[in-house]
Amino acid sequence: MEEGDFRSNITVVGLGLIGGSFAMALRQFNVGRIFGIDIDESVLNKAVACGVIDEGASNADEILCKSDMVIIALYPRDTIEFIKNYAGYFRPGTIVTDTCGIKQPIIEAAKKSLGSDVEFVGGHPMAGNEFQGFEAASRDLFFDTNYIITPHESNSESGMAVIEKLAAAIGCKCVTRIGAEVHDRMISFTSQLPHIVAISFANLMMGEKDMNLFTGRSFKDATRVAVLNKELWTQIFRMNNLNIIDRIEDMENMLHNLKNAINAQDESCLQILFDNAIKGKRKII
Amino acid sequence: MEEGDFRSNITVVGLGLIGGSFAMALRQFNVGRIFGIDIDESVLNKAVACGVIDEGASNADEILCKSDMVIIALYPRDTIEFIKNYAGYFRPGTIVTDTCGIKQPIIEAAKKSLGSDVEFVGGHPMAGNEFQGFEAASRDLFFDTNYIITPHESNSESGMAVIEKLAAAIGCKCVTRIGAEVHDRMISFTSQLPHIVAISFANLMMGEKDMNLFTGRSFKDATRVAVLNKELWTQIFRMNNLNIIDRIEDMENMLHNLKNAINAQDESCLQILFDNAIKGKRKII
Repeated sequence: MEEGDFRSNITVVGLGLIGGSFAMALRQFNVGRIFGIDIDESVLNKAVACGVIDEGASNADEILCKSDMVIIALYPRDTIEFIKNYAGYFRPGTIVTDTCGIKQPIIEAAKKSLGSDVEFVGGHPMAGNEFQGFEAASRDLFFDTNYIITPHESNSESGMAVIEKLAAAIGCKCVTRIGAEVHDRMISFTSQLPHIVAISFANLMMGEKDMNLFTGRSFKDATRVAVLNKELWTQIFRMNNLNIIDRIEDMENMLHNLKNAINAQDESCLQILFDNAIKGKRKII
Repeated sequence: MEEGDFRSNITVVGLGLIGGSFAMALRQFNVGRIFGIDIDESVLNKAVACGVIDEGASNADEILCKSDMVIIALYPRDTIEFIKNYAGYFRPGTIVTDTCGIKQPIIEAAKKSLGSDVEFVGGHPMAGNEFQGFEAASRDLFFDTNYIITPHESNSESGMAVIEKLAAAIGCKCVTRIGAEVHDRMISFTSQLPHIVAISFANLMMGEKDMNLFTGRSFKDATRVAVLNKELWTQIFRMNNLNIIDRIEDMENMLHNLKNAINAQDESCLQILFDNAIKGKRKII
């Protein structure tokens, strides 16, 4: 495959929310053939029937040997399993990427399992929502979102450029290269901690009656992602556990500061916390 | 004023986000005259110029004596001050309501200050956003929101019905009567705790670089209300401090449970927390 050339055969592994959306977004371009791999035959049939993929298979062997690019859109643990199990089936020269929200264990597994004739580029499309499955997929899912590529020492400039071009093509507003370690720390802050808080809110409200009478937009926003994909988040919490525990402790400390300021009616301390909150929020685009 | 009759003179005290929106929403109906009271003359001029109010004054005396209904849309501390200072100026038979997110201290002040010929009905329109001032007001602000009325022992059925009809008229989907004590506890959960968490998130991110590369929708939602009205929230935190401290401790305990489950890789405990989160969130309309 030429650098930045999508007129090649692309395989999407896992036609869920992310993989399905990838296939739908790519369908708009002049790519070669789009293949889909999924354990659920009914999803494959649906994806073929609506023209999102050209051909589907639940057995990866027969598809990988004719793919120039493979986008693995599975949960983290399954991504690692897939790489291990199919390492020998990728065609030489294939560019393989993933979509996991946690990067260090994925990169390590890829480096360990894949031969030098296959290039693995770690990627994290920061898209998604509280829904799941092919039914929830949309070609617009990536529009205006961030995409992070986590380079490692065996990556080539051209390999990374292909994934960057892919991300730009599907609509991402910002594609950045960041080391996997930094990624895993930052993402524990911006994605995993909001989920932790939403889970906490929703658990706290289990004991309350007539909650709907008292909800405004701030509560709805704070709990939006509480309806989560359990399997995905179990894996993420396990694989990024140390960072997540640090972030929970950061939140606990900040809540403690606020509680002390409210308890002591310390308005000057509150003003500082308010000013920082306003400044901090204004930095977010 | 007749029960449920808006063909009477209504005064809105404070033409900010809430008061301005009240006046704009009422303007659509066949009410008598709409008066505005505000300390900012330029806001009054603007409101008259765009036809939202018929007449404005920064001095309440001259307006209150010709008002059948008074909607006080000031911050909590200022609402109490206004009630105290102008208790003698309301016309006999006036229905006075407020819009504060904290109710016990307001009801107490009203009961203490107002004569028996004036009926105070405590109200909390659960509308608002991260903006403030007349510029941000909109006649649609209350559409599809909750409105809570907090009855006290001197309220008449007809007095409360007027405010219920008012809330329905401006677009609220659900108008409920709840005791002030229950209100103040529940609101610490559904409104004040989400703000506490948003403030914490935004403070935590002050020390981080390149945050925008890592943000997705969950982070944006979690921090939306961090750009807050400092004066309003200082007053709310002071006046509902005991409930808020309890809610922060509830959140600290839940975060602690999650941290322990993640730390111990206790997947069965995580599953329970996830299941409760999903069930809890699904209860929210």
